[in-house]
Amino acid sequence: MTSPHHTRRSTVRAALAAAGIDALLVTDLVNVRYLTGFTGSNAALLLVTADDEEPGRAHGHVDKATDEADARTRFCTDGRYTVQAQDQVPDLPRLIARPSDVALLRGAPAGSVGFEARSLPVAAYDVLQAVARERRRPVSLRTTLDVVEGVRLVKDATEIDALARACAVADRALAELIAADGIRPGRTEREVGLDLDRRMRELGAADPAFETIVAAGANSAIPHHRPTAAVLAPGDLVKLDFGAIVDGYHSDMTRTVVLGEPAAWQREIYDLVHAAQAAGRAACAPGATGDAVDAAARDLIAAAGYGPEFAHGLGHGVGLQIHEAPSLARGSASIMAPDMCVTVEPGVYLPGRGGVRIEDSGVIRPDGYHVLTTTSKDLRVL
Amino acid sequence: MTSPHHTRRSTVRAALAAAGIDALLVTDLVNVRYLTGFTGSNAALLLVTADDEEPGRAHGHVDKATDEADARTRFCTDGRYTVQAQDQVPDLPRLIARPSDVALLRGAPAGSVGFEARSLPVAAYDVLQAVARERRRPVSLRTTLDVVEGVRLVKDATEIDALARACAVADRALAELIAADGIRPGRTEREVGLDLDRRMRELGAADPAFETIVAAGANSAIPHHRPTAAVLAPGDLVKLDFGAIVDGYHSDMTRTVVLGEPAAWQREIYDLVHAAQAAGRAACAPGATGDAVDAAARDLIAAAGYGPEFAHGLGHGVGLQIHEAPSLARGSASIMAPDMCVTVEPGVYLPGRGGVRIEDSGVIRPDGYHVLTTTSKDLRVL
Repeated sequence: MTSPHHTRRSTVRAALAAAGIDALLVTDLVNVRYLTGFTGSNAALLLVTADDEEPGRAHGHVDKATDEADARTRFCTDGRYTVQAQDQVPDLPRLIARPSDVALLRGAPAGSVGFEARSLPVAAYDVLQAVARERRRPVSLRTTLDVVEGVRLVKDATEIDALARACAVADRALAELIAADGIRPGRTEREVGLDLDRRMRELGAADPAFETIVAAGANSAIPHHRPTAAVLAPGDLVKLDFGAIVDGYHSDMTRTVVLGEPAAWQREIYDLVHAAQAAGRAACAPGATGDAVDAAARDLIAAAGYGPEFAHGLGHGVGLQIHEAPSLARGSASIMAPDMCVTVEPGVYLPGRGGVRIEDSGVIRPDGYHVLTTTSKDLRVL
Repeated sequence: MTSPHHTRRSTVRAALAAAGIDALLVTDLVNVRYLTGFTGSNAALLLVTADDEEPGRAHGHVDKATDEADARTRFCTDGRYTVQAQDQVPDLPRLIARPSDVALLRGAPAGSVGFEARSLPVAAYDVLQAVARERRRPVSLRTTLDVVEGVRLVKDATEIDALARACAVADRALAELIAADGIRPGRTEREVGLDLDRRMRELGAADPAFETIVAAGANSAIPHHRPTAAVLAPGDLVKLDFGAIVDGYHSDMTRTVVLGEPAAWQREIYDLVHAAQAAGRAACAPGATGDAVDAAARDLIAAAGYGPEFAHGLGHGVGLQIHEAPSLARGSASIMAPDMCVTVEPGVYLPGRGGVRIEDSGVIRPDGYHVLTTTSKDLRVL
């Protein structure tokens, strides 16, 4: 039986081999988790590409060869996590040492060792360089960018399942909140946010995916408003942007409701954002660029005269991080592909009055974008 | 009126001047928050040391000179945070640009510009180097380590007040949890943890300071156990390690209780850890090294034959981060000084049976260690 982590490691090793790199020192903890399942706060991983010089390798089974490759992989963490590493990373040779990256580099086979330049701090790099120079059998450190992130871009079935469950938790928490009359005049933004967070946790979220946004009235015009003691009032637009973490995967959704019958301007921008969000989803199909998907929604908003009031990108990848590749924004050359998971979240914000954002998380399939956050997007009057 | 952020910037500028560095590019978000109060997820700060060449400067008032220094400071974030930056950083010139570090380096005065090597990723450094080379008026990037962290080591009154409030929230949440019979046989570790977290939030915590540890029975022997569906049972030791974030400051405390009359072995290790924690606190005075403070507690545990069962350091600094300098551990050369805030947290863990840890957060004063987490450390039988 092949675990998803095992498969992911094989994919990354193939990418390394293609790039002519003998090993990759994975220090980004999100990437370590992706490749091993380990969730602690300190660890590193050394992935070693297939050693073609080993006699007899060419005659082995693929499975066996892969297992041999894993046998030459090294996972390292510190003494606090000995038991946790046994539980979470039973399938790899484990080392307990600190600093973990240094220990792994000391034991790496001779050759080129890639490091993750996007996240490795300069000071840690300087230490690794000193270690590399001390070694008897030489290694040369090689800058790499997005090797693991490139593999993470397209989600496997395990990941999409986790993300779907994270989306379901958020959907259900919002439904419960509304059913319990939790979004009502007199409550503060902060109370509503805590209520929503509590419901997500009770439904199985490890945590909210980010600091839940509850923005009422004029505050709804602030794209990234943090919940305050502001009291919800009749006539307010209330924007809720929130998500759940399930098995490490982050859902992300926004719904905007109105307390009482909407004013004409509220209805107008709601309908506009609603249509733009649908246009964005429709454009979010394999082969489209991030720029084109963004434009599909943005052009509609701009044509209605609200271009400047939509000042952020249309969406972003979601997964083990709340913001990851690809980017759906002006100028983004990212190409959409099946099994990428992205948000689509246009908004229109009228300073001092109020704003509307509507956001789904979803998965791109060969036939287009499938929402995973299934809460209705019709204007909800509470 | 001088804000604490203003004072902190002056202190850091003095440290830079002493090191012969003309400016510091602050990219670590915790350091940006410390120096400005900004809490968003993207920002950078350029601190410029006093420009002695400016005519007339020597005749100005100190206050005026400081203000002029702040006038040459630049804060930068992106368009999502325009309003938030106005609110949180009203006292500094602000720039809206992305990437923020690049924008600030482009506008930096000629000379040496320090960067924070402990946190700046190699890839971001490479971009900055390219920007530096493009500039007409040359800048040379200089590695710095812990410039701002060195200032953060000793807390000012605003910080100690925030930490004290964070400790009070944690103390009170635990008292409420116990009063409500929240730690009882039949509940799961996870239920107890969520209950404690909810109480901290209701008492004003922005969030728990880290993932709350609730570890019952044999699980209490795992130093960093994550709450599971394990059910609390009569006779269990239950270890609770938790804290609250208030105004960005992290409290950290551990108490271990017992469900029903303790067995002799439970009483033995409890009394031992209790005595070791007191010894650690007593040794935690200005002038002591982190190694000596650690030894004061550790020697007692080792003398009782449990040395190997106390496998982690005695404590660490707390503040804007849950773990920061100084370190109280074997080999730590950190020197304790007044107004440092540190934890003291020895433990003894007997695999398969159970463990005890007792931890306070506190502040070092001229006369010694003052606990901020005031919950009793006598063995609590529930």
